[in-house]
Parts: sequence; C-alpha cells; structure tokens
Amino acid sequence: MLYLVGLGLSDETDITVKGLEVVKKASRVYLEAYTSILLVDQAVLEKYYGRSVTIADREMVESNSDEILRDAQTEDVAFLVVGDPFGATTHTDIVLRARELKIPVRTVPNASIMSGIGACGLQLYNFGQTVSMVFFTDSWRPASFYDRVKENRAIGLHTLVLLDIKVKEPNLESMARGRIVYEPPRYMSVGTCARQMLEVEEDRKEGAYGPDSLAIGAARVGGKEETFVAGTLKELCDADDKLGPPLHSLVLLGNRTHELEHDFVREFAIDKDNWDRIWKEQYHTQ
Amino acid sequence: MLYLVGLGLSDETDITVKGLEVVKKASRVYLEAYTSILLVDQAVLEKYYGRSVTIADREMVESNSDEILRDAQTEDVAFLVVGDPFGATTHTDIVLRARELKIPVRTVPNASIMSGIGACGLQLYNFGQTVSMVFFTDSWRPASFYDRVKENRAIGLHTLVLLDIKVKEPNLESMARGRIVYEPPRYMSVGTCARQMLEVEEDRKEGAYGPDSLAIGAARVGGKEETFVAGTLKELCDADDKLGPPLHSLVLLGNRTHELEHDFVREFAIDKDNWDRIWKEQYHTQ
Repeated sequence: MLYLVGLGLSDETDITVKGLEVVKKASRVYLEAYTSILLVDQAVLEKYYGRSVTIADREMVESNSDEILRDAQTEDVAFLVVGDPFGATTHTDIVLRARELKIPVRTVPNASIMSGIGACGLQLYNFGQTVSMVFFTDSWRPASFYDRVKENRAIGLHTLVLLDIKVKEPNLESMARGRIVYEPPRYMSVGTCARQMLEVEEDRKEGAYGPDSLAIGAARVGGKEETFVAGTLKELCDADDKLGPPLHSLVLLGNRTHELEHDFVREFAIDKDNWDRIWKEQYHTQ
Repeated sequence: MLYLVGLGLSDETDITVKGLEVVKKASRVYLEAYTSILLVDQAVLEKYYGRSVTIADREMVESNSDEILRDAQTEDVAFLVVGDPFGATTHTDIVLRARELKIPVRTVPNASIMSGIGACGLQLYNFGQTVSMVFFTDSWRPASFYDRVKENRAIGLHTLVLLDIKVKEPNLESMARGRIVYEPPRYMSVGTCARQMLEVEEDRKEGAYGPDSLAIGAARVGGKEETFVAGTLKELCDADDKLGPPLHSLVLLGNRTHELEHDFVREFAIDKDNWDRIWKEQYHTQ
C-alpha cells in the first residue's frame, strides 16, 4: 500500500493520529520537500517519529518514482507531504503511476494552506481560483497569474496567492564549472509578491487591481506564531518586518464581502482608518 | 484560551496530535455538531478522548456562546469542529465574541472538505467559489447557487457543491401541538443534488450546465470507504447506490482542464466511453 500522508502546516505535532500510526508502521518513509516545507527540520521529524526519513526531492519524485513505489504491492510505503497530499499536482502523478503498478493507495488528509487561510477571517466560499507567484528574474517574469486574478476580481472573489519557494537550486556559475553547489533556500515574502503584482499591473494596465487594493499578508499559517497583516498592496510592499520569517502567503480581496469579514480582518490592518475608508468606497458588503 | 480544534473529515483518529493534546488538557470540551458530522458517534469520540464532550447545537453556538466562553480568560476551552475550524461562518462569530471578552484564541487546523476534495483528482487551483445546496421544499427552492456556478463555469472553473445536512430539526406537527420532537437526521445525497441542479437549469435556461455536463459525486471523503463516481449530471441522478452512505459532496467540472485531471478522474467514470466523448467535445485540456 502507498500511503500519502498530509503533515499539515506547521510542526511535527500537526500530523494526525492516523497519519502517525502509518508512519510508525511503514517499511519506508519519504518526505516530499520541494513544493512546501514545515517550520521544523527533518531531524525534528525523525526524532518525533522514532525513525529515519528519506528526503524526496523534485528529481526523485518526478523521474525516479518507481524507487519510492518499490515493493509497495506487498509492503507499506509512506509518502509524507506538507499540507494536504493533493495540494500539488506532483502527487496526482505518483498516484497514477501506482495505479499502473497495481499498488493500492490510501490518503491521510490534513490541513492545506488552501483551507487554513480561512484563519485570516475571509470566508473560504468567497475565494476564486488560487494562483502562484514565482520569483521574477530579469528575463523571466511570468504573468499568467494576472489573468486569473482579473477573472476572480471581475466576479468579486478573493484570490489566494501562493508564494515561490526555492530549495536545492543549483548555483549556475558552479554548474558551468562542472561542480554542483546548491544555493541556500529562498522563500518569497509578501513584500516581494506585492511589488511584483504592482509591476505587472503597471505593464498591463488592465485594472485588475492597484496600489490601493486591499490585501492580507499571512505568515506561518497554522503555527503558534501565525501572523496576519492587512493593508493596501502598497502598504504590504513594506510590511515584511511585521510579518516575520517564512512561509508567507498573500490574499487579494474581492469586493463581494461579508460584514463578518470586515469585522474580523480590520483587527489586522496596518492603518485602520485607511482600511475603513477604502473598504467603504470599493468593497461592498452583501 | 479558546482553542478551535479541527477534527478532520472521517473518524476519531483524524484529529492531529496537537489537537488531541488540547482536548485532553482543556477544562471543558464542546463539539459543534450541526454544520457537519464525523462518520463516527459522539460516544466513540468520548471513549477515545477519555472524557465527556458537550454537544453544541446551533442554538447554543449562535445564542449562548458566552456559556461556551465562560472563564476562558483563565481556563482552556476546546471547541471541536468537524473539518477545519474556519470552514463555516459560525466560527468566525465565536472568535469575534472571544476578542470582545479579551479571550485569547488559538486554532488547530485540519483537513477540510474544501481541500480534501482534491482526492477526486481535480486540481484544487482550478476550483472557483464553493456553493451550498439545501433541500428544496414545495415553497422554498433557493437558487442563488446557480449564479455562482454560472460565474465559475464562464471562466472554466470547477465548483464544489456542499450538500445540506439536517440535524436536530423539530417536527413541525408536534411543535404545533406544543411538544418538541426532533426529526431523524437527513443528509443530502448526490442524486438529490443533481436532480435539484437540473430542475433549476430547466427553470432558468441560462445554460450554466445541462444533463450532459460532467460531474463527480464524492462520498465519505478522507475515510476508509471514500468513494468517487464520475458521470454526467443525468447519470449522477441515479448513482446513489454506487456512492453508498453519507456524507456526499458534488463537483461540477469546469471546462478548463489539465490532462492529469482527465487521466485521474476517468477511473471513476460510470460510463467511460460516454465520459471520453463528452470530455473531448466540451472540455478542452490546457
């Protein structure tokens, strides 16, 4: 049996009791560690589980999944995923491969950022499609998120923006010299995301949003140090100090809002007067 | 401290280790039992936790929340919610009330149907806003879901439809005679939902979807007996036998799909040839 086990969002104790039983009994345990990360290290997990865990990086999962699935027709293999196992496309792939190999699959669900973001006070049923934001470079500034945000905003819906993480990225200079050296991990902040969003709006000028659009920066959702900061996109460009360490996410508000959302989120506003003024002008309460 | 603890989707072992520690230590434990249910009884939970649990019905949570929050400035109170604590609007309300009373609040997230539905093989980032479907009566047939489904479909997105549950509903005849007798609980099935959807389309005739639109019926998501059945809305009207006992949910597909979604979901199709034909005609793969 292949078990896909969600680990939740924060630390070693966010695993479910059911998930922990699977981990303790499985023949082999893999940890998918490139689409998201927990806020604790591998060593903490290993100590907590009382056993060793093999890190499954992108290359292993995408090109060598048969090693992960080896003998899973007769043995139990646990594949641990931060958040919920079906948060990322990658895991659909491994289930399809397991089906081909006649390996039974069971999923142990857990909190995902896609539902955990509800803790910011916006109602989950008012969210449209989720988008991702990658680190821009001089030559690569993918803006497909813009069209989707625009679609959501056109019908008044909130947009969850998931922020890029870069783990185990090879250093290009070293690679050119024939050596593989990995860059330190990088996690996009809300400030970087807000700046990139405003840059793209300046290019496109289609008014999907602007510097005064309301948004919420979220940090370490589900953890003890969970932090939300609400403000305009412009204000959020400079709010990283308030948010603190990774992981960050951002929610751009839609203008079809509920009174409870206003009351709940206002608490997090950087400038409450400004927040109230813009809400009143642009965000109608149903 | 008020702890909002998510219980996940299925049975007593879906609680997180962190959540279980909170339940074991809290002064009082309440279980919100009207927006969703687990697939196990209260008695199973009480035995598992080793302590008694007070059922918090709608009246208690909405009109008497100060009893739940009593002394939570100095004691720990655990408020257990099936799924994730922020899946339902109600729980935003209790947090706001706690803030007024200067009670600190902490959330223990867990799987929600809004992320757990990813197990059906559709990508979570391709979902639009979530809608609810209530039991129609002769005089009450609320169709506000229709406009939202239409908005999602117009931009190619999937729609998760959450199905009505009726627990602790008073019998109206007995109430007229001055006695309160509660009806047995009722849980909407995928078949009822599909029929109601098609009735509303027949009234509205705006083409948000039709009998040949593709959908997935989901039963007991996250549980051992998790079942998915894929077909047209018309086919799903008669698929309740295949799906089995509650809880059910339904996903109406958007036509902006990913190849992996096709490969994954096809496995669940009632009539694979029909599924392939309609997919090819109406659902373009990106």
